[in-house]
Amino acid sequence: MSSEGRGRSDGVRVADRASAGPVASGAIEAAADRVATIQGRIAALRATMAAAGLAAYIVPSSDPHLSEYPPARWLGRAWLSGFTGSAGTLVVTATHAAVWADSRYWVQAESQLAGTGIVLAKLQGGQAAPHIAWLAENLAPGDQVGIDAHVVALGAAQAMVTQLGEKGLTLRTDRDLLETIWLVRPRLPETPIYEHEAPFAPRSRADKLAAVREAMAAHDAQWHWVSTLDDLAWLLNLRGADVSYNPVFLGHALVGRGTPDAGHGSTGSSGVTLFVDPSKVNAALAAALQADGVTLAPYAEAESTLRGLPSGVRLMIDPRRATLGMAQAARDAGVVLVEAANPSTLAKACKQPAEVAHIRETMAHDGAALCTFFAWLERALAAREAGDTAQDPIDELTIDTVLRAAREQQPGYVCESFATIAGFNANGAMPHYRATPEAFSVIEGDGLLLIDSGGQYLGGTTDITRVVPVGTPSAAQKRDYTTVLKGMISLSRARFPYGIRGPMLDAIARAPMWAEGIDFGHGTGHGVGYFLNVHEGPQVISHYANADAATAMLPGMITSIEPGVYRAGQWGVRIENLVINQPAPATDEGETFGRFLAFETLTLCPIDTRCIQAERLTPEERAWLDAYHRTVRERVAPLVEGDALAWLEQRTQPL
Amino acid sequence: MSSEGRGRSDGVRVADRASAGPVASGAIEAAADRVATIQGRIAALRATMAAAGLAAYIVPSSDPHLSEYPPARWLGRAWLSGFTGSAGTLVVTATHAAVWADSRYWVQAESQLAGTGIVLAKLQGGQAAPHIAWLAENLAPGDQVGIDAHVVALGAAQAMVTQLGEKGLTLRTDRDLLETIWLVRPRLPETPIYEHEAPFAPRSRADKLAAVREAMAAHDAQWHWVSTLDDLAWLLNLRGADVSYNPVFLGHALVGRGTPDAGHGSTGSSGVTLFVDPSKVNAALAAALQADGVTLAPYAEAESTLRGLPSGVRLMIDPRRATLGMAQAARDAGVVLVEAANPSTLAKACKQPAEVAHIRETMAHDGAALCTFFAWLERALAAREAGDTAQDPIDELTIDTVLRAAREQQPGYVCESFATIAGFNANGAMPHYRATPEAFSVIEGDGLLLIDSGGQYLGGTTDITRVVPVGTPSAAQKRDYTTVLKGMISLSRARFPYGIRGPMLDAIARAPMWAEGIDFGHGTGHGVGYFLNVHEGPQVISHYANADAATAMLPGMITSIEPGVYRAGQWGVRIENLVINQPAPATDEGETFGRFLAFETLTLCPIDTRCIQAERLTPEERAWLDAYHRTVRERVAPLVEGDALAWLEQRTQPL
Repeated sequence: MSSEGRGRSDGVRVADRASAGPVASGAIEAAADRVATIQGRIAALRATMAAAGLAAYIVPSSDPHLSEYPPARWLGRAWLSGFTGSAGTLVVTATHAAVWADSRYWVQAESQLAGTGIVLAKLQGGQAAPHIAWLAENLAPGDQVGIDAHVVALGAAQAMVTQLGEKGLTLRTDRDLLETIWLVRPRLPETPIYEHEAPFAPRSRADKLAAVREAMAAHDAQWHWVSTLDDLAWLLNLRGADVSYNPVFLGHALVGRGTPDAGHGSTGSSGVTLFVDPSKVNAALAAALQADGVTLAPYAEAESTLRGLPSGVRLMIDPRRATLGMAQAARDAGVVLVEAANPSTLAKACKQPAEVAHIRETMAHDGAALCTFFAWLERALAAREAGDTAQDPIDELTIDTVLRAAREQQPGYVCESFATIAGFNANGAMPHYRATPEAFSVIEGDGLLLIDSGGQYLGGTTDITRVVPVGTPSAAQKRDYTTVLKGMISLSRARFPYGIRGPMLDAIARAPMWAEGIDFGHGTGHGVGYFLNVHEGPQVISHYANADAATAMLPGMITSIEPGVYRAGQWGVRIENLVINQPAPATDEGETFGRFLAFETLTLCPIDTRCIQAERLTPEERAWLDAYHRTVRERVAPLVEGDALAWLEQRTQPL
Repeated sequence: MSSEGRGRSDGVRVADRASAGPVASGAIEAAADRVATIQGRIAALRATMAAAGLAAYIVPSSDPHLSEYPPARWLGRAWLSGFTGSAGTLVVTATHAAVWADSRYWVQAESQLAGTGIVLAKLQGGQAAPHIAWLAENLAPGDQVGIDAHVVALGAAQAMVTQLGEKGLTLRTDRDLLETIWLVRPRLPETPIYEHEAPFAPRSRADKLAAVREAMAAHDAQWHWVSTLDDLAWLLNLRGADVSYNPVFLGHALVGRGTPDAGHGSTGSSGVTLFVDPSKVNAALAAALQADGVTLAPYAEAESTLRGLPSGVRLMIDPRRATLGMAQAARDAGVVLVEAANPSTLAKACKQPAEVAHIRETMAHDGAALCTFFAWLERALAAREAGDTAQDPIDELTIDTVLRAAREQQPGYVCESFATIAGFNANGAMPHYRATPEAFSVIEGDGLLLIDSGGQYLGGTTDITRVVPVGTPSAAQKRDYTTVLKGMISLSRARFPYGIRGPMLDAIARAPMWAEGIDFGHGTGHGVGYFLNVHEGPQVISHYANADAATAMLPGMITSIEPGVYRAGQWGVRIENLVINQPAPATDEGETFGRFLAFETLTLCPIDTRCIQAERLTPEERAWLDAYHRTVRERVAPLVEGDALAWLEQRTQPL
């Protein structure tokens, strides 16, 4: 979570700085008092809704870039409701307020919403937009529902309009009600933008732009709009630190076709305009960008530039990856919207061989850091148990610190790829738990310690979960551990048809768990970027996901495999590796039945065998585990020494 | 395929009767000459297209009821192209003609299309409407594409309009070009309609109508439109024989809310209007229907009745289960279309306990018929092999005849549920093969015989595939057989969460096959009706299917489990049972992780063990198979005697 050299800022820190508004300071204080509590904020929102004629207002977890982790400025749902989970939607009507959140957040949301008057609406797997269905049920025909056009995807907004329209409701998208009530709203982050350079970025910016322009030509579009930060960073080989964990920067890009003979020369469609805060780009970088036809413009001018496009030109825009606000700006100008998936999204997901080589190396280094950490952890826990007074107690926050320090020693390390989840026993039962200085557990006694962590490296992004025994775990804990491991191995060993939609594979991991009456409420696998977002699409292995054609599994896509068991108030088990789609090893069948893919496991770290009920593994499962441990030892041993090497050798023994 | 007592007519027979048209007989003959060949028919279509200003014309495999098996009158695609497979779409442009068909039909289509100038476009799994994409690519902006509004679903038509519109193409739906060129077009079938009575139909018509009206009330709709024949038959507890294999009759229904206080009394919204050929309903049945508020109207008046609805009323209509033609008629009248799934579709899919009791009994009788058949088959093949000259050769057509005769002996038998597929060796490699008097194989020598058959009974619909060895099958054949069996058992044993979308379960069957580099191009499981269509939705277990929310697995749904391996020109293996979703047996977990479902296997017939490579089965797979055979023996033995009983006992021995 560091790398000051890269100028990374913490999204939380900027939350303290107020944006200067045209309000006298006494009035600010009085108004700020009124919104000092959650109840006060909801009351203020309701007053604003009433003034605007809105029967309901929706505050999603989103921003103008449809980010999973928005900067503090757009954490309005958390500010309004007090629920700080990374996903959830607040809906407020005159009489009702609810947060829709999925099962990962139920424990946290119930605790944070208690006493606020806001209820938790439990989002079940597979539901698309139940809050819209709820509004359609509970409002009266003619009512207006509000949402800020700048934080909702074009496609999602279209679906809302249809769903609400069936009940005679209309969607109003022209107001950001937070502007008027969130007086101390955080400013935009201002961290520098830097180049992701060769050899770590093996494909040039010019080459990537050329590929995107081919897709534009196929759609007969003169322009292409990019608002999603990972697409933007990938396309231009740039990185930043505007949000936590994802090495991206706030910006939009308007990509022109790049050929003067496209017949739209006068509209300037030949180059790329990058909308970013100009202070973020130093002169050398600006010149390098200019050399590739990328011109800078202020971040705030993105929307007005779209409004200034000539009527009749065709703009390729991804309805899932651009906001209604931007689409509407172009439409108002008479631009023809050509809805298509951003070509960069798929290109980015399919890692190039040169990138894969870096990822393999990065994984070995990440594994080395983990060996160092786990060797320390076992030694420290043993010392505590032996009564060694020189050893301080180990708690969940210590783990976070020591693990980060171990990764910081590795070449190419930039920052954490997400906030470490170190959860002991009951805390491990919360899939998105995070220990805080106000609430954390000490690791002592008996049980299971779950650690989910990852790093951003110039040569790749890591994400790994391991569970280790503390003291003497119970038979029930070992049973869960073994069941999860069976699910993890089952999918890791799978062969599957080239191009099958990823959601269709989830059941392979879950079947051995379902057999025991066990399940878990999150996806089995998410896509992972290359020194980019730890959650990326279109690849996804989750039966809860929308299995659209874009989720087709293709060579070079990286996903996690991370089944889990969560027993609220008791313990949690999750075992997670990252894997990459590779052409499957040949069989006697050749391609008689088509081409097949298989997973190459990328993550290199022992899977603790002390909690395995070995008699419950099939011979194939044991063989997979032993082979995995052989690989881990071979690849990581050259990078560690001393205690870490001894630990690695001990924990990679065959079962 | 019989049951004359029920007045069943063969859809093929009526194909010989011409509809009387206003054309002089000499002209008919000349015109008929011109369309005597496939080339002539395509040329005539192109001439008609040119006159109508259409750049392309689409002929789907469909009818005004969106049936899977249309009556002969709507087999226009087969008449035009010569390709007689049950699924496929013909697209004709001025210069190009192609049939899009999925992998089940590739061998057949290539053979039937050879020399016609029509090419086969191979439909890959998971593709939605590639022929529309092809048209969008290959026509010029401004071009018009034609399709008859009366044979395309409302939803599909809307998607076509969007997809074509992106390329500046328009969809014209106001012409049925077949009318002008298909001079000897078959008439509509005219078989009697009869009641599906208690105890086999345990739920009354009034009760079903009340449930549908509840859904109408929830959607605030005064009217509901039903065009799909299985929904219609289920809703009114009626059956017919207008098409082959599915015991349905041609008709539509306009269902009124049924409450005089609905505020639309003057529009007559209180009852049901059933649009059927009046000659099909005898006086007693008409009176019984009238007693339940169901009034008869001529089949041909359906559309004009919709056009006569009062403007502003709300009509609940299923965009997937009603045609654009009917929807357009209502829309033209100013009716508000409320798009929603037919409530009957889901209600019909979830079989009631009283129905399940009948199905279990029916399955035992179907199993008894199969024992009789297989005992005969083995004896006859052995006699041939022993040189017994009294025994005629056994061929694929003989099998069809003997098997049907065995089923006809069973109580409640009505007709076949589809045309028996009996394919020896290479013929078994065509999943939808059907032997004909012109082309069939004799069962002799060594290999595998695949038999897929089923019956319609008053107490349920059956569908079963078994593969038996003939002579000495090869090791490769046994290997495929065992692999398919592993897939079949793997899914049959699965537990899975209540409500999971069925397509997500397919991989559980395929994973053991994919491990060997093997796959198959059809779904693993289709829904099955209750004395209704052998293919019904919304339940489906196929990763190729659209995994929408409607595919949620619920108790009482029946599906097939039928993985296969097809080696073109060599042999095919498919093993198929029908299963029903039941609450899963309790585990120690209770409902900690939610409710689970499991499959109860309904089909009762031995799975031949002579081709099993027993060493490749896991202990769990062997246990499943032995337990299944125990159940089959217990349940079927009381219904058979002599050779059939001896065969049953021999073929249900533990592995």
